[in-house]
Amino acid sequence: MKADTYRLTAVEALQAFETGSLTVEEYARSLLRRIEERDHIVKAWAYLNPSQVLQQAKALDKVPKDQRGPLHGVAVGIKDVIYTKGMPTQHNSPIYTDSQPEVDAASVAMLRQAGALILGKTTTTQFAAITVGTKTSNAHDPERTPGGSSSGSGAAVADFQVPLALGTQTGGSMIRPGSFNGIFALKPTWNAISREGQKIYSLILDTLGLYGRSVDDLKLLADVFGIRDDEPPAPLSKGVCGLKFAFLKTMVWKHAGPGTRNAWEEGKELLRNAGAEVIDIDFPSEFDKLPEWHTCVLFKDGSVAFRPEYKVAKDQLDSSLVDFVDEKHGYSRKDYLQAFDGISALRPKWDDIAEQYAAVVVPSVPDEAPKGLESTGSAVFQGIWTALHAPIVNIPGFKGENGLPVGLSLTTARFKDQALLSVSKQVGEVWVRQS
Amino acid sequence: MKADTYRLTAVEALQAFETGSLTVEEYARSLLRRIEERDHIVKAWAYLNPSQVLQQAKALDKVPKDQRGPLHGVAVGIKDVIYTKGMPTQHNSPIYTDSQPEVDAASVAMLRQAGALILGKTTTTQFAAITVGTKTSNAHDPERTPGGSSSGSGAAVADFQVPLALGTQTGGSMIRPGSFNGIFALKPTWNAISREGQKIYSLILDTLGLYGRSVDDLKLLADVFGIRDDEPPAPLSKGVCGLKFAFLKTMVWKHAGPGTRNAWEEGKELLRNAGAEVIDIDFPSEFDKLPEWHTCVLFKDGSVAFRPEYKVAKDQLDSSLVDFVDEKHGYSRKDYLQAFDGISALRPKWDDIAEQYAAVVVPSVPDEAPKGLESTGSAVFQGIWTALHAPIVNIPGFKGENGLPVGLSLTTARFKDQALLSVSKQVGEVWVRQS
Repeated sequence: MKADTYRLTAVEALQAFETGSLTVEEYARSLLRRIEERDHIVKAWAYLNPSQVLQQAKALDKVPKDQRGPLHGVAVGIKDVIYTKGMPTQHNSPIYTDSQPEVDAASVAMLRQAGALILGKTTTTQFAAITVGTKTSNAHDPERTPGGSSSGSGAAVADFQVPLALGTQTGGSMIRPGSFNGIFALKPTWNAISREGQKIYSLILDTLGLYGRSVDDLKLLADVFGIRDDEPPAPLSKGVCGLKFAFLKTMVWKHAGPGTRNAWEEGKELLRNAGAEVIDIDFPSEFDKLPEWHTCVLFKDGSVAFRPEYKVAKDQLDSSLVDFVDEKHGYSRKDYLQAFDGISALRPKWDDIAEQYAAVVVPSVPDEAPKGLESTGSAVFQGIWTALHAPIVNIPGFKGENGLPVGLSLTTARFKDQALLSVSKQVGEVWVRQS
Repeated sequence: MKADTYRLTAVEALQAFETGSLTVEEYARSLLRRIEERDHIVKAWAYLNPSQVLQQAKALDKVPKDQRGPLHGVAVGIKDVIYTKGMPTQHNSPIYTDSQPEVDAASVAMLRQAGALILGKTTTTQFAAITVGTKTSNAHDPERTPGGSSSGSGAAVADFQVPLALGTQTGGSMIRPGSFNGIFALKPTWNAISREGQKIYSLILDTLGLYGRSVDDLKLLADVFGIRDDEPPAPLSKGVCGLKFAFLKTMVWKHAGPGTRNAWEEGKELLRNAGAEVIDIDFPSEFDKLPEWHTCVLFKDGSVAFRPEYKVAKDQLDSSLVDFVDEKHGYSRKDYLQAFDGISALRPKWDDIAEQYAAVVVPSVPDEAPKGLESTGSAVFQGIWTALHAPIVNIPGFKGENGLPVGLSLTTARFKDQALLSVSKQVGEVWVRQS
């Protein structure tokens, strides 16, 4: 076993298990050593029990080769808003300290059935619903936020502590940590994967998401979760050459800082140089209200979601969530329905636009990860896509003014997740190779 | 304590606790005796532990008067697809035999905080997703179905085994047992109450619902769950007199049997006689596809929801749910989006229609409960309203050809739940009084 076994991607680890050059136990020990070395700085884990991990690993090593699942032995981190048998689920809330529902979320049940090694629970902001930072730091700079709310999942994957992790997105909680930590992130089409066993913030927005350090790894997970398009995507034998990409700055482009602005131009240039067709597009004006509508749905749904905690232990609930339940936001039910229905009407219109291109390139975040761990940064560029239920992939490859990662995102029409992964792989090879 | 204490409504029980004429323990013992007498026939409970009930009741009796909640001591049955600390949640599935997640669903957490006595878990069809009957029988005839999937909750409330119960509706799983057992049922506006901790069948359809033997009891529960309209409903000091009701047979009226047809005419006549204005309306033709769209969304969402169970223990999953996951229904993702978006576009249109009336009267079910316990009957009249997210109340009061209960439903625009309860109370007094 090599000293840097922990750096293997999921696909590479699977190959090593298959050839017998690596056991799951050896692999697990390598990850645990990496975590021991780094966790006092990155602090990505809300719960991790090394002896439990090794016990799982040993059991997996005993599974006969012909009975191994498609994720046999691959380690996965689970955001701590997702139920996981044998581990607590604490939502970064004092109300749920040591709470351990002995049930697996749908996603975790499918992971286990596929032979995954459930490594532990990764940090989240409170209920994945606020932007007040966790203890976790960015994998590339201990003084900067990893983003949120999927803070631990993003940082742990980037820091080679685990190759794959699950997160969730209601605003920008998958793509932001993906961009800030320089890894690949997929927020699939809404309800392409069951959200059973995942804490609710907004039913119509919350989406389970996947982190990895390669698109192949994301695809591996997507396949285990049963994500399929109506038609399997056509093979892209010529890379991005001949593909048509739209660059869409969105109505909130004014929030883009130098890191994202430079990535925008660089990304465009690199695609052109690789033979892709690149055009600029704008949203039709009827999309103007989308950011405000997203906020309205988020806040109003939060008032429903956190009412139980408010009633049971208001003093232990973050004050912004108390404000949700008290409806301090001032949105009426009528406002909510206008926003809810307005977003609903835009979804098919977005699909029609997106289907004209191999993918639409959009900003992931305003800029590289800001300094400090207090705030996890802004979701301004992502609420739009969460609301539209569009699949979206963060592709790393660029750097901001301080050398921290900046990504751009690829999005498309609903239920074209596999096609998007296929294109993302090609774009990743163009963008990441240069970094 | 009177011999028929078990017959008290929730509001009546609260009054008795308040005056001190009844203790929670006495009340609980009366319900347990009723259950002991009747459960071998009705079989409404998936889990009920008398000593656990009495322990809860004794603890509630020790709560000082000034610290009692709005449901102090009131017994509530919980459909067995809803997580309940200290009790198993088995979904009528062998995959979950004795499964006991130690966590309360949002609804159960709010009930406990309000001082409710969680009596036990009521029967459901498998995952509340199929129409193959439970062991439970109709409260009025042991040879007839209580309906489903909220079979146990509907039958137990009707049989005076518990005054209130929670159920769920994805097709017609609240209103059908409500009508078949002759009780009041409220399926509120979608997402008016958090569905956290309730098994998922379809995210966009599943709705938590409430059973009681009076509208006041439903209102009591609705208030505990925080259901509010933008404006509190105006008092109806003249009953239904002067109110305008629309009767809407819907595009599936051909499924109405003699019980529902008679109730339809009787209900209309009684409202007219009480001074209400009654008119007939039809859906605009753009609503024609609604039943088919509902089915498409249901089937496709089922393929996502039951994938974990399919992967883990396909042989223990009902064959109709296996077919969902195998996509035997033949709906493509494109079909699904057309249905999903088509329904979304109709919701505000329905609200505009409904807002012209005090309430819209619609069929609850095709007829009285059919013979046999094999099938729970048809949801044909209810999928429409579940899809439209409209609040709906079953009001009992009529009888079919065999003397079994038949109800009619009142529905309205989204987030007018309290207004609907207010009108339902008046209509209930007109319809139920005559029976």
